[in-house]
Amino acid sequence: MSDAKIIDGKATALSLRARVAEQAQAFADAAGRLPGLAVVLVGEDPASAVYVRAKERASAEAHIGGTVHRLPATTTQEELLALVRALNADTTVDGILVQLPLPPQIDAHAIIAAIDPEKDVDGFHPINAGRLASGLPGFVPCTPLGCLMLLKDYHDHLAGLEAVVVGRSNIVGKPMAQLLLAESCTVTIAHSRTRDLFGAVRRSDIVIAAVGVPELIRGDWIKPGATVIDVGINRVTLPDGKTKLIGDVAYDEAIEVAGAITPVPGGVGPMTIAVLLRNTLVAAHRKTGIALDERTL
Amino acid sequence: MSDAKIIDGKATALSLRARVAEQAQAFADAAGRLPGLAVVLVGEDPASAVYVRAKERASAEAHIGGTVHRLPATTTQEELLALVRALNADTTVDGILVQLPLPPQIDAHAIIAAIDPEKDVDGFHPINAGRLASGLPGFVPCTPLGCLMLLKDYHDHLAGLEAVVVGRSNIVGKPMAQLLLAESCTVTIAHSRTRDLFGAVRRSDIVIAAVGVPELIRGDWIKPGATVIDVGINRVTLPDGKTKLIGDVAYDEAIEVAGAITPVPGGVGPMTIAVLLRNTLVAAHRKTGIALDERTL
Repeated sequence: MSDAKIIDGKATALSLRARVAEQAQAFADAAGRLPGLAVVLVGEDPASAVYVRAKERASAEAHIGGTVHRLPATTTQEELLALVRALNADTTVDGILVQLPLPPQIDAHAIIAAIDPEKDVDGFHPINAGRLASGLPGFVPCTPLGCLMLLKDYHDHLAGLEAVVVGRSNIVGKPMAQLLLAESCTVTIAHSRTRDLFGAVRRSDIVIAAVGVPELIRGDWIKPGATVIDVGINRVTLPDGKTKLIGDVAYDEAIEVAGAITPVPGGVGPMTIAVLLRNTLVAAHRKTGIALDERTL
Repeated sequence: MSDAKIIDGKATALSLRARVAEQAQAFADAAGRLPGLAVVLVGEDPASAVYVRAKERASAEAHIGGTVHRLPATTTQEELLALVRALNADTTVDGILVQLPLPPQIDAHAIIAAIDPEKDVDGFHPINAGRLASGLPGFVPCTPLGCLMLLKDYHDHLAGLEAVVVGRSNIVGKPMAQLLLAESCTVTIAHSRTRDLFGAVRRSDIVIAAVGVPELIRGDWIKPGATVIDVGINRVTLPDGKTKLIGDVAYDEAIEVAGAITPVPGGVGPMTIAVLLRNTLVAAHRKTGIALDERTL
């Protein structure tokens, strides 16, 4: 029997979405329109289509005015740039999200760099990455910000804690490391070239696993009492042919050792869309100058 | 008697400056003008005045056309912004450096953000910080790039090495961590809130000390054979009343253990201006489209 607290990302995300919905309604009362999120989906990638539908539903529930622009897989870079520019210029659009991945004829870096940084609710624009790195206000990518919120639900203070981020993507690992550093954790960034991943995990009070390798991190690597945030969502096929989602951490083992741990699914996953709605709400307030205490979100 | 190699930053910087001078002359032959660096100095801070004079001398020697704009300490933010905008628009200026610190009536963040990112040879603009964090080409701050060059002089490969960066400033620590991560080191960022600095240093193959505390890091913390890069330049007063420059590492102790170590002075210090000249040369080529193999610098 384990004493680990299971970190309920679903409940935290629901609560965040409820706060966003309330503030979005107040924004609409003041501004005469809902906060607006424009989602751009290029092509027919089935996973992307599922994500975009989930974003549509969640936007509607949170009083965020969502518009989805569905473009064919044959869209040219110039056509997509033209749409981004039009959305930049549209005063009713507060947030712009271009669903990744994009078809091979399109340079994703060029598209992201074309988004107005003040509407970049995904936080992928280099200037928002730079603001995060420089300690300036901007937009932070949704998944790592969601991880930080889960950590803060559980820890009153993060300063001085030893943290390891396993994975160095621009979308999760690197911004996560910046957020933990800004909270005054001692941060180690580990990745596929790391020689002593066991040692890095073993000494850490906080483990963020964002590497995309099923159950790479075993239970006996975890420092007793550590907080484990598992960003991995890996679909694996079981012996009976069914599939199942599992994380980057061997959950059944780790829960015996950790102080707190996120399950997969139901941990980090639900936070990502909730933070996207939060970022859109924040963008709407910043753009219009309507006051919002961002710390209450 | 120690076997540690003393990393001669002065020699490496001289060699870099000679390569810059040669390429700057070639640029002048092609472009009909020297690469241009505009340095802005506000007020009478004596240390800043010394740095700026050193930059002037080094620019002249490297065939970089340097112009220094000296403004009174009473300069307003609007006056400084107007100068930055004029330098942004001046086609003969390839690099702009605003010497820090600025007087208290001026918001340094606003000034840095006003510099054309393509002329930001200090690499402090948030978009250049973001490009570095995102793995995109841009300008990297001079001191950490100089440290990386010293490391690469000594190591053929950095991938997989355990590195600790002690200090998390926007100017040295954070960009240094990004550079080491891009070289596939396992990177730990330590700072004043770190609980086990000894442990972080002790396990590291590469130690970057950039914290500004004289001889904080002792010799017996260093892993035998490690490479130590000391960014600290601390002026201390000796018992006889004379002053002396010392680093963040106890050099006399560390040299007995390290595989290689930078002295203070004569280690990292000389690299900073050499990299500034290099960045200005690179900016001139990128802006004019004249070809330059940046890897040869």
